Parts: sequence; C-alpha cells; structure tokens
Amino acid sequence: MKLKELAEHLGLSQTTVSRALNGYPEVKESTRLMVQETAARLGYRPNASARRLATGRAGAIGFVLRGSEEFGPHTTEFLAGLSGRLAEEEVDILLTNVDSYQEELAAYRRAAASKKVDAFILHSPKLRDERAELLHDINIPYILHGRTEIGRPHAWLDIDNQGAMERATSHLIDLGHRRIALINGVRGRTFAEHREAGFRAALAARGLPVDPALMANAIFTDEVAFRLAQTMLELKPRPTAFLAGSMMTALGIFRAIRQAGFELGKDVSIIAHDDVFPYLNADNMFPAMSTTRSSIRAAGVRIAELILQLLDGKPAGAIHELWPVDLVLRQSSGPPR
Amino acid sequence: MKLKELAEHLGLSQTTVSRALNGYPEVKESTRLMVQETAARLGYRPNASARRLATGRAGAIGFVLRGSEEFGPHTTEFLAGLSGRLAEEEVDILLTNVDSYQEELAAYRRAAASKKVDAFILHSPKLRDERAELLHDINIPYILHGRTEIGRPHAWLDIDNQGAMERATSHLIDLGHRRIALINGVRGRTFAEHREAGFRAALAARGLPVDPALMANAIFTDEVAFRLAQTMLELKPRPTAFLAGSMMTALGIFRAIRQAGFELGKDVSIIAHDDVFPYLNADNMFPAMSTTRSSIRAAGVRIAELILQLLDGKPAGAIHELWPVDLVLRQSSGPPR
Repeated sequence: MKLKELAEHLGLSQTTVSRALNGYPEVKESTRLMVQETAARLGYRPNASARRLATGRAGAIGFVLRGSEEFGPHTTEFLAGLSGRLAEEEVDILLTNVDSYQEELAAYRRAAASKKVDAFILHSPKLRDERAELLHDINIPYILHGRTEIGRPHAWLDIDNQGAMERATSHLIDLGHRRIALINGVRGRTFAEHREAGFRAALAARGLPVDPALMANAIFTDEVAFRLAQTMLELKPRPTAFLAGSMMTALGIFRAIRQAGFELGKDVSIIAHDDVFPYLNADNMFPAMSTTRSSIRAAGVRIAELILQLLDGKPAGAIHELWPVDLVLRQSSGPPR
Repeated sequence: MKLKELAEHLGLSQTTVSRALNGYPEVKESTRLMVQETAARLGYRPNASARRLATGRAGAIGFVLRGSEEFGPHTTEFLAGLSGRLAEEEVDILLTNVDSYQEELAAYRRAAASKKVDAFILHSPKLRDERAELLHDINIPYILHGRTEIGRPHAWLDIDNQGAMERATSHLIDLGHRRIALINGVRGRTFAEHREAGFRAALAARGLPVDPALMANAIFTDEVAFRLAQTMLELKPRPTAFLAGSMMTALGIFRAIRQAGFELGKDVSIIAHDDVFPYLNADNMFPAMSTTRSSIRAAGVRIAELILQLLDGKPAGAIHELWPVDLVLRQSSGPPR
C-alpha cells in the first residue's frame, strides 16, 4: 500500500498523513493516533527513504578493516550476506581501511563526529576488545560478529567454535587417532581461543596429552598451512590427523600430505572448518573434505537483521545468538592405518 | 610539517594561513600567493580532514554490486587494493548492493542527490554500458575498471584481455593442440568478449576452425566449470587443451580431467587466467598451473590513484591505462600425447 492510497482511505491529505506517521507536532494527537492505527491495520509501510528522512539516519553501517590482508574470502562472504539484507532497507555499508589498531580507534571517533554511519559491525574480536569499549563509551550502536568480554551489555552473534572443535576432535579420537594436529587461526582472536579450548577439552576427556609441536596459530592461507603441515609431518611419530582452521588451511595441509607421499583420508585425515565458500566446495574436493560447517554468509544476513533491530530500539543486551555448527563427515577423515 | 610550524615560519596566525591555503576571499591576494608558495617550497601538505573541509568533499568513493553473487574473490581482491590506497587519503568506500540493473541506475541517481560519494567506480562493464552514460549525464565523476564504448570521454583502466588470450591460444597451437576449449566469463561483459576475440584471432591466424561445442560462457565457479568441462571431455574427438577464464574455473576443469581418468599437463592441458589470489596460488597447485596473469589487487591500487587524479581536476579523457598481461608457463600445459 502506498502513502497515496492510505491518504485516500483516510480522507486526509498525503502531507497530513505523512506528518502524522512521523509524529510532527502540528498534527493533533487524536488524528495522529487514528492515522497510525489505520496504517498498522492496513499494513502500510513507508519506504526506506521516507523513514530515513523521518528518523535522521545516515543510512549506512560502518565496517572497518585493518590492512589489505583482512580482505579475504571470509570478509567477502560475510559482506555478501550483510549487504544483501541491508539492501532491502536501502542501507549501504561504509568500508574504512586502516593501517593499525590505533588508527582503527581513531576511525570510530571520526565516524561518531561525522555521523556518516548509524552503527558499526565489529569483526574478529579479541577476548577483551578495546574497540567495543570505545564504541560503548562514545555511544555508537554496534554488534559483534564473534564474542568478547567487556563487562557491559552489547549485541553479538557467534558460532559455537568451542563445541564444534570438541566434537571434531572427539570424532578423530573415536576413529583411533592419537596424534592429532591443530592448525588454528591467529592467537588472541576469540574464535581461535575458543577452538583451542574445545580441542584441549576433547583430549583431556580421553586422557590424551597435548603436544605443543602439533599446535600452530597462523593466518588462513594455503601457503602458511603448507609449511606448518610439512614440518609436523616430519615429526616422529608424525600426526595421523589434522584439524584445519579454514578451507584455505586445508588446501595447504592437503598439498603437504600429497607431497610427502601420503594418501588423504587413509594415511592422514583432515577435518576442516568450512565457512561455505561458493567457489570452494568441500563436497567437490577430491577426496571430498570432512568439515565443521557454518555459513558465514548466513551470519552476515542475520547480523544485518539484528543491527536493524538494534537501531529500532531493541536493547543491545537482549541481542545474543550462539549458532550450533554442523559436523559433516566425508572422505578426508577415516581411521588411521 | 604541521600547520602550526608553517604559520610560525611565516609569522602569521594559523587561521590566516589556513584561509590563505584554502583560497578564502578575506585573505589578500598577495598574502595568499606568498603563503601558497612557501607551503609548496617547504613541502607542507594539509591533512585529509582539513582538505576535505576545504573542498567540501564527501570523502567516499561509491561501488555498487548487483546481488550477492558479485561478492566473489575478484571483487574482494580489487577492493583490497582500492581501499588500501584510498585509506592513505582517509577516503572510504561506500558499498551499495542492488537487486537489478534498474535499481543500480536508481542508486546512482540517489547518490548524486545525497552527495554521499565523490565519485563511482564502475566494474564489469558491458560493451556499451548504460551506467557510464547515466553517470556522464548526471555529472558524477567515475572511472571504469574495464572498457566500454559510450562515445564520450571517460576514465578507464583495463588489462589487455584480447592480447593475453591470443598469446595463450597461439602457444597451445604451437605445442600441437588442435582441439582447444574456451570456458569464458559471462557473455556481454567486455572482458569476455575481448577474450573470445583473442581466441578467435589466434585460431584464424593458423587456419583452424572455431568449434562452438568447445566454447562456453559462464560465471566463474568450480561447479559450473566442472560440468561444462565434463560435457566437453565426452566429445569425440575430445579437446586436448582448455583455456580457463579464472582460477576457480580451472579448479573445476582440473576436477573433470581427473575424474575422467586423464592426466593434467599430459593428456589434457590447461592455461587459466589468474587474477592473483593470495589464498589460491597457481605455483602451489599440483601440478603447477600455467596462467595468463595480472594482479587485480594492483589494478585496485592504481584505480584509487587515478580517481584521486580525476577528483583533483585531471580530465577524464586523459585517464586511460591498458595493462599488458604475463603468460606464465608451468606444468599444466604441454604438448598433446
């Protein structure tokens, strides 16, 4: 239903109806209530531009990236989901690139002053994230993709990294693996710490020792994972299974396994975390890759919805979602020979 | 050098110096010239925020994506280069996602009215691109990543797709291949049309026929390329070499070759176009992939520089760059058995 139709239905001018809906003081209270009730009953919804004019919003959500290396497949997939959903409300994404952590904090302060964005999305949080504290202090709405501890109510959406890793590790132990390697994300990031906690919990539950030589933290690229896996495969006794932090990591481990003359899924197993990239399908790999799976694009869509709720007045402390993670078993994991 | 130091050097107040640099009429012409000459001589450069205030710029460049499927690895790499360079000038990127071509045109009109961006980058242009015509008509600065024909002066940067494909095809013919397949990008996009023209030119130069059954246009994913290559490999006689439009396409073709029981680089050759993704390295593939190579991230960096030149007053018609493309031969291409 359009504004024109609503006005005709009410027998009022479009100007009066628009002012009533936006709470202008020149419209009588009784008229305002009548217009708003009728609009709600008939399902009238003002378009995005009209709402923005009425609310004084910037119509953009801020997203800050530190350096070009943060533009990876994970960021792309997340932004694809986020921007697709925001587009339905004609909300844009303002991307700011900064060189350092200090510059990132400065960018938030500048954005607060310039009013170019209505809210921020914080990604890859640390266990205790100063950025969240700053945004809280300068009173800009924000939501975390991931979790942090700052002792103040804030909105977040995360996947159950700890539970996923605990389950994958337990499964490998059940298959008979005793030397299991973990090639994890960068140390200090909450998701990587949670995954390590899950890995350690599963080993501890079965009385298995943690071998620091079988654990590494690194960025998610094929090249780095290849070198780390190569070194680990030279250990005696060598690992019989790998847990990979990402699909890119898995490709590097896979290459090291092949180059060492081992067979994937027979001599050495892999379970990789899969954020679901349309151009790198675990099912299509050869052999198909076992994964812990959660769509980062779907998380982007949902975070768009949550941030719209936040801007509509839902309390930040009431916006928490922890998503379970699937364990999908394919050919890359099996019992050790 | 800071504004304060420049003012002290000149024996003037900071306010006067700032006004002189920004051409305010309340500063005498002789003072303005003296301040500007001294500033230039001493290498004084006002910071980004100060320049923006002085110029009235929005401090953001617009980038419109149609649908979530345009958020792929190519876009990411391009944005990484673009935003890294723009960050040096404290310029952001405003990402707008739209559902359709008509909505994309509407987004440009809205942006022109709202003054949220100073210029746009048009990507994946068609041979004759209506978007460029619109931006020209509504008088918003823009630069094309790629080329189009609109009969008006405009800024662009492109790689030599036609030359690259002609060279790769000629090389395969030199090796002895006569049945060469081309899995190209989406029809109608300038880059795909230029590549097809290069392919046809190389075949024609050696008197070889074009077989439509060995040509396909598709989006750049592993899955689609896998199916197309599978069908082509069932032809009799089958192709002995493939030209792949992207690294993702190459992965799909590679999978089809393996699944059909052929050996890559021996039974069937591939040369792929490589935009240089940090997480998918042609050198690290097994066997290593022969490529036509041009860094799309480097193109993003350079387009940032060109758009800053455009905003500083360089005529759009004087901003044209056509980059040559490397042909890098590795193990995935060799003579047919």
